[in-house]
Amino acid sequence: MTIKISIDCMGGDHGPAVTIPAAVSFVNSEPEAELILVGLESAIRAELKKHKAADHPRLSVLNATEVVTMDDPLEVALRRKKDSSMRVAINLVKDGRAHACVSAGNTGALMAVSRYVLKTIPGVDRPALCALIPNQKDAPTYMLDLGANVDCEAQHLHQFALMGAVLVSALEGKAKPTIGLLNVGEEDIKGNDVVKQTAALLRADHEKDLLNFHGNVEGNDIFEGTTDIVVCDGFVGNVVLKASEGLGRFVKKVLTTEFKRNPLNMLGALIATGAIKAISRRMNPSRYNGASLLGLRGLVFKSHGGENAYGYEWAIKRAFDAAKYDVISRISKSIAELMSQPETDPAAAGGSGVNDLTQQKSA
Amino acid sequence: MTIKISIDCMGGDHGPAVTIPAAVSFVNSEPEAELILVGLESAIRAELKKHKAADHPRLSVLNATEVVTMDDPLEVALRRKKDSSMRVAINLVKDGRAHACVSAGNTGALMAVSRYVLKTIPGVDRPALCALIPNQKDAPTYMLDLGANVDCEAQHLHQFALMGAVLVSALEGKAKPTIGLLNVGEEDIKGNDVVKQTAALLRADHEKDLLNFHGNVEGNDIFEGTTDIVVCDGFVGNVVLKASEGLGRFVKKVLTTEFKRNPLNMLGALIATGAIKAISRRMNPSRYNGASLLGLRGLVFKSHGGENAYGYEWAIKRAFDAAKYDVISRISKSIAELMSQPETDPAAAGGSGVNDLTQQKSA
Repeated sequence: MTIKISIDCMGGDHGPAVTIPAAVSFVNSEPEAELILVGLESAIRAELKKHKAADHPRLSVLNATEVVTMDDPLEVALRRKKDSSMRVAINLVKDGRAHACVSAGNTGALMAVSRYVLKTIPGVDRPALCALIPNQKDAPTYMLDLGANVDCEAQHLHQFALMGAVLVSALEGKAKPTIGLLNVGEEDIKGNDVVKQTAALLRADHEKDLLNFHGNVEGNDIFEGTTDIVVCDGFVGNVVLKASEGLGRFVKKVLTTEFKRNPLNMLGALIATGAIKAISRRMNPSRYNGASLLGLRGLVFKSHGGENAYGYEWAIKRAFDAAKYDVISRISKSIAELMSQPETDPAAAGGSGVNDLTQQKSA
Repeated sequence: MTIKISIDCMGGDHGPAVTIPAAVSFVNSEPEAELILVGLESAIRAELKKHKAADHPRLSVLNATEVVTMDDPLEVALRRKKDSSMRVAINLVKDGRAHACVSAGNTGALMAVSRYVLKTIPGVDRPALCALIPNQKDAPTYMLDLGANVDCEAQHLHQFALMGAVLVSALEGKAKPTIGLLNVGEEDIKGNDVVKQTAALLRADHEKDLLNFHGNVEGNDIFEGTTDIVVCDGFVGNVVLKASEGLGRFVKKVLTTEFKRNPLNMLGALIATGAIKAISRRMNPSRYNGASLLGLRGLVFKSHGGENAYGYEWAIKRAFDAAKYDVISRISKSIAELMSQPETDPAAAGGSGVNDLTQQKSA
């Protein structure tokens, strides 16, 4: 079976200089993959030539005349740049011409355009962003939501857990990945009402063997790798992620200062440089690149904006694996089952269909 | 003027072996301080003798026969151990025999007992825990709330900001410390309703020159030191703090592994040990020890459980400075002014008087 992936070649800090070599390398390593390269045709063809892939039978080019920049307001990405590489790549998924899309563009724009073009899966009113966080077990912790939904009810967190479990099954080959609910303590009595209600929903699913609920986890468990998946609302997820990035930069600065203070100054500097590189690699590994926008009627993967070709290829690989495993159908099935359960209030589960990104845009 | 501080000598991992040398050192360095040492009299007197302070004129001993352990449920600390060193030390504040109390005991128990004994300041229905987080500017970021209040409304976050500003004025000597509101972006349109409402309240205060509101800050700003104070609800605060601790342990592990991998093996190990110690000192400095329980009718300071005497002395110093600056009267005045403002809804500001710790206890 051929899996077709549309690539927003213009997104990210480096554009075709990163996306094209990544695409070429991936298509050469994966015989079932076919990639549609979307963006400024001349720039893409020049890069393809450079990588000796101008006539690759499983690489095609689709011209798109505009580019969504990192500074473009959502408004511009959504309403004006209708021929952007991002929009055209997502349209391919909508039209059934691609199974998944990969972009390194602006996260807010990608979420807004994907949501607008693809719409959500019936029963899902809030798509979530799920990224891979490195942990002490040298494995990824899948964490969602990371910023799209700042006000969540229990049924949203419940859906995030279900969608995350389907994704992790696809990408990690785990039949029943463990799910942790982010809280201020492990005990059932801890936390706010939304978290307590979510825990009750997840426990009920666990008892029916629908998923593998570990229970509450705390902030440290993200990095300890206690569970495969950590579920939280987008406010908490965003703050934790950015705090971790800030702490990372702080550590880097302290390391540099401390080593430069070493009496064997040159040696200290040398060791510091090596150590910082090694730590950066472990803390922010390129092989964990490729966050997923879950809950849409199509697969969209987000690469870090500054990622290199090796990392970008990992995002393509994740999109490929998710498509091959048919994550959308599995999530749809899982959500439909959830909605058909007698104890679920369909009105509550259905919700308003308006997510926070959209609300913010018009605020 | 003499400032009297009651010391829970039994709290923390080390008890009198840490608390007594800290108390002796502090009282010798601060002629206006008088310390009341609370706990098992024989153990305290033995330590005092060891530190040549058995007859110090400004050190007195008050016997308390029980100790709240780290594993004691709140119930036990609150209802059963009525002669614990923690409870007796807090009682001294209530009875006006001490201006402030310091304890390295169990945080949950300390908050519950303090709240039960001291009660809250009129208008404050949720006391907050405010700790010092090291930042890149080599200064502390004061962050609150850190775990006591998992469901906050805008008026609670508003009060946290006011109380934090009074505390930082006292401890850092800054007339108008800057206040940041933790959010998922800097723009006004970002965040959930509670955060947006809080920002509106803080902006109004800023315009009246009642406080110095910087605006929204993001997770990374905590460690960048963008503002003197970061305000958030206790759920987010707790998760961020624990995630940071988890990331810190992860960094430590990676550092050790990477240096041991160094071909100059012995040298690598040596450098790693030194570097990790230096980094730990910078990331978790003893001089930032001493979190404050704000919003009560008395000053209570919490030392880390594992802190050494140098760090514990810093917690005593913070309690002393807060008492000398009369933080309680200033907070009371600030909250009273807030409640007298026509635009504040007194019913909403008054609230139920029940905080989450108490709710959890009886859940």
